[in-house]
Amino acid sequence: MTMNILGYATHSPTDNLAPYHFERREPRADDVVIEILYCGVCHSDLHQAHNDWHNSNYPLVPGHEIVGRVTEVGAAVTRFKVGDLAAVGCMVDSCQHCEPCEHGEEQYCVEFPTLTYNSVNRHDQMPTYGGYSEKIVVTEKFTLKVPENLELAGTAPLLCAGITTWSPLRHWKVGKGSRVAVVGLGGLGHMALKLAKALGAEVTLFTRSEGKEADARRLGADNIVLSSDETQMAAVQGHFDFILDTVPYIHDLNQYIPTLAISGTLVLVGYLGPLEPMLNTAPMVLGRKSIAGSLIGGIAETQELLDFCAEHNITSDVEVIKIQEINTAYQRMLKSDVKYRFVIDMKSLKA
Amino acid sequence: MTMNILGYATHSPTDNLAPYHFERREPRADDVVIEILYCGVCHSDLHQAHNDWHNSNYPLVPGHEIVGRVTEVGAAVTRFKVGDLAAVGCMVDSCQHCEPCEHGEEQYCVEFPTLTYNSVNRHDQMPTYGGYSEKIVVTEKFTLKVPENLELAGTAPLLCAGITTWSPLRHWKVGKGSRVAVVGLGGLGHMALKLAKALGAEVTLFTRSEGKEADARRLGADNIVLSSDETQMAAVQGHFDFILDTVPYIHDLNQYIPTLAISGTLVLVGYLGPLEPMLNTAPMVLGRKSIAGSLIGGIAETQELLDFCAEHNITSDVEVIKIQEINTAYQRMLKSDVKYRFVIDMKSLKA
Repeated sequence: MTMNILGYATHSPTDNLAPYHFERREPRADDVVIEILYCGVCHSDLHQAHNDWHNSNYPLVPGHEIVGRVTEVGAAVTRFKVGDLAAVGCMVDSCQHCEPCEHGEEQYCVEFPTLTYNSVNRHDQMPTYGGYSEKIVVTEKFTLKVPENLELAGTAPLLCAGITTWSPLRHWKVGKGSRVAVVGLGGLGHMALKLAKALGAEVTLFTRSEGKEADARRLGADNIVLSSDETQMAAVQGHFDFILDTVPYIHDLNQYIPTLAISGTLVLVGYLGPLEPMLNTAPMVLGRKSIAGSLIGGIAETQELLDFCAEHNITSDVEVIKIQEINTAYQRMLKSDVKYRFVIDMKSLKA
Repeated sequence: MTMNILGYATHSPTDNLAPYHFERREPRADDVVIEILYCGVCHSDLHQAHNDWHNSNYPLVPGHEIVGRVTEVGAAVTRFKVGDLAAVGCMVDSCQHCEPCEHGEEQYCVEFPTLTYNSVNRHDQMPTYGGYSEKIVVTEKFTLKVPENLELAGTAPLLCAGITTWSPLRHWKVGKGSRVAVVGLGGLGHMALKLAKALGAEVTLFTRSEGKEADARRLGADNIVLSSDETQMAAVQGHFDFILDTVPYIHDLNQYIPTLAISGTLVLVGYLGPLEPMLNTAPMVLGRKSIAGSLIGGIAETQELLDFCAEHNITSDVEVIKIQEINTAYQRMLKSDVKYRFVIDMKSLKA
């Protein structure tokens, strides 16, 4: 018996999101059923809703920053029981046998992970639907434990914005003594400031707009550099071991590379596409500097993040909305008018 | 008393190289005087002679792949005695107190290293002149030991072509089990094949031209991939941990990035300038792939290379020429008509 579920879906690139009933599978032996309490609103939800990446399947129920409470567990589930807090991020499954999967890097699964929405279940070929909905059914392997002391609404964005910044900070071994810069102060950028600071790094925010200083400092920045100010940029030449670039649109990297120290790395987590203006390799060769990309993070790493956040009392700065406000929220996101993440209180779905 | 030295110089971007007398300093207490036996001919010699980088000072005596025999040592010199073999590479000095210098990475000296030619001595402000000459005077710190069993003409290119490929292979920890690809089969590329193979890696050559297979295999390649052949390229998608790109002119990197494995790195050692066509960041983000640059190598690392080559009996494949043939050699280099490095037998200077 499949479950009939109420969610919010869009039926075309130009439709608004609206109430929608759909089916979820009957829980298998290894499944956990989660009543969704909060779901974060990610920029990619908006891109998928609008078919910006030309791969959207409709009806589309977005949402991959999910926290809730377990209401049912399959017979083989060992790590969760009814009543536990639980969370789901961007992936709900992967091949489980390729090299990245074996190393706990399911986000790089060679056969591509099953995404939380706009994807197809690898076992029954049912479409996947996201967290803008009452409940979700997920294999235990892709279900995260939520420490009880975390504020729940602010925890939801850890599942995407959080892990997307955490994974590269860990992979490139940011820690005490690291000199880190963050480019962009949005959902990802504000998490990067908090996490890099908690890891013990000296943290700088690169920004193009004045007036972000007080907020950036509150979030963990030790320094703020206006990237349009030549004097400020000159002062940080060769300074950073690691730059986390969270900007989600095309932008010029050439001004940031010279601020990397010898052997430093700039990691893109927000922008997929051609680099324009053309990247100049000269400062890379002359200083052994790298440009890399990074995609969300693995399941074990996401659990590590949640535990780290519980220990350091870190959550996302959020604006909690009702599901009925989602279309307005999308419009505001397009204007970067949110500090710093919208999170849907899913009990509004029952209103 | 300065020394009057015979060398070959060019006096303008369009002149040929021709005999030229110039002064070298009287050896200081920490200096070694080396009678030059062989000097390799690097592509950058040609770029500097022609002022392609808009920083050439004339008269210009090129040459930074120098091997020879010690004829004189200063009073404070401890590691060399008269009659020893010795070598000099791209650098003859650096600040010796910045962080890179303290880590033995003088090539990334924050105050910029003193180059072997077309540079200015940091102590007496005399111009530096390169290895197309009878003798050179160099501080002991920047003088390398040459193991006695190495064939001398083939050793000269290790000082630039060799270390330029060795340094990134070591920095990115290439070794047994690594899957390495080399792009381009010239002076640098042929050394990369030999060194990566000797380090225990599985080695592939990417080439655009058929007919290089036998030579590539002889030099150490396990596989050859024609980059113009879609089937061959498809077969190596996601395969390489490390790609060393030795191509010295503008070229498209987008075809190589997808052949990197998850977390793999492509390192540019030959090309400084804008990347065109535009680099697409999508495969970098989706597979945590990096693009980096790397510049020659440090002095200790160069010694490590020479010792490694002595142990594995590795030298460069060279065509030995007389200094009188240098202008013809430059013309042939522009057509890539050399296997794989010209080396000047400096005794021809006395002819």
